[in-house]
Amino acid sequence: MEQKRILLTVSYDGFDYVGWQYQENGPSIQGELETALEKALGAFVRVTGASRTDAGVHALGQRAHFDVCSSIPPEKYPFVLNRYLPEDIRVVAAQQVAPDFHARFQARGKWYTYRIHNAPHASAIFRRCTAHVPVTLNEEAMRRCAAPLIGTHDFAAFAAAGGQAKTTVRTIDCFQVQRAGEEITLRVHGNGFLYNMVRIIAGTLIDVGHGRLPEDCIEKALQSKNRLDLGVTAPAHGLELTRVEYDFDSQQLYMP
Amino acid sequence: MEQKRILLTVSYDGFDYVGWQYQENGPSIQGELETALEKALGAFVRVTGASRTDAGVHALGQRAHFDVCSSIPPEKYPFVLNRYLPEDIRVVAAQQVAPDFHARFQARGKWYTYRIHNAPHASAIFRRCTAHVPVTLNEEAMRRCAAPLIGTHDFAAFAAAGGQAKTTVRTIDCFQVQRAGEEITLRVHGNGFLYNMVRIIAGTLIDVGHGRLPEDCIEKALQSKNRLDLGVTAPAHGLELTRVEYDFDSQQLYMP
Repeated sequence: MEQKRILLTVSYDGFDYVGWQYQENGPSIQGELETALEKALGAFVRVTGASRTDAGVHALGQRAHFDVCSSIPPEKYPFVLNRYLPEDIRVVAAQQVAPDFHARFQARGKWYTYRIHNAPHASAIFRRCTAHVPVTLNEEAMRRCAAPLIGTHDFAAFAAAGGQAKTTVRTIDCFQVQRAGEEITLRVHGNGFLYNMVRIIAGTLIDVGHGRLPEDCIEKALQSKNRLDLGVTAPAHGLELTRVEYDFDSQQLYMP
Repeated sequence: MEQKRILLTVSYDGFDYVGWQYQENGPSIQGELETALEKALGAFVRVTGASRTDAGVHALGQRAHFDVCSSIPPEKYPFVLNRYLPEDIRVVAAQQVAPDFHARFQARGKWYTYRIHNAPHASAIFRRCTAHVPVTLNEEAMRRCAAPLIGTHDFAAFAAAGGQAKTTVRTIDCFQVQRAGEEITLRVHGNGFLYNMVRIIAGTLIDVGHGRLPEDCIEKALQSKNRLDLGVTAPAHGLELTRVEYDFDSQQLYMP
């Protein structure tokens, strides 16, 4: 039987996981997927994700590839794997891709969503997928502060130590700040993101919404390339990897 | 010190609870609130809720009253109680009310929300607060089926056994069926609801959206008063008690 490369679309509530990547010290998304594949196929299969999301970070549409020799039709993998996966991880789609396809290196764009619960008390219902900010945030100031992110820039100031990127130049082509009652949602689309980049942007905008950082701090940090011009890294559990895009995906504009 | 009656607004993720009401066989919302009050006040205080939500049912705005002799300013109770409550229960507001006020008997209206995740695979992230329906539902048919609910009717067919209501006549003045991508949200406002009434309506509409029940089944059941004309009771964890209204609340139209 010929070997096939399969690309999965995976959704998860990352709250109870050590992150995407396999680690000895707790359950990982990658580890759970590899365990489910081993149960389904009777052999160990390595899974490669598009994004190594951190502990606590969620995904609506992570994508990951693996190689397999099996007669299972590619589109059946969601049903096969969801039988063995915990309820907080769901494979929602699967397709066959070229043998040289790579989920990480060939991603041409990603959407991330950051959710803030902006109310005096934390949300009981959505506490696992929102960051709680008790002080009322000025979303207009946040929007003005974020505007200079759009474009191709050196985002060196927006990276935590520990990243492995060769260059810190990235392109962001959409950044939205939307309030619906007590929820403020940040949505960003770009061709790639540095380590902790979205959480650093979110933390900075929270500080600006508070009035604790000036509105021009992002503009300034793009010039200075100095991490100290920006705010704290916002909590992981507010972040969701919403979508990973490849060339073969529909070109239709995706709006989360 | 004079005795005060305090009214709380309480939000909870009911997934891990046996329901509002205190029971021996597991943690209840009422029990957790009474435990938190005992820790805060040093004495047992009975809490009376507006609605005895079932096991698994959530609340954005449950309301509950208790009597207390304490110098704690009423508006401080959210801060005091949230220190002792688990993270999936949050007191979000508190106010003093008249000594003869009753959270259940004086409620003049309630909003409920029922969330359906309508996609081939269940939601990893929102699995605790949505009912999963894998078959694509026709929300237009659901909307047409629900239309006759509006008005004052004898809802005898819409009640599970075990309710304690003296009359089965209720008034529903708003019923919405909205789809946003894979989520279908049902929102209903009425002056009161029978035991399991919203879950029976939701289960019926799911069956109608499937094409397994005729679109006129609700209209028929209002005439026949026969539970068998309706569908199954939808799962508890899709339901949220969104808001409980009293005469002294803002008359401003609330739209969830």
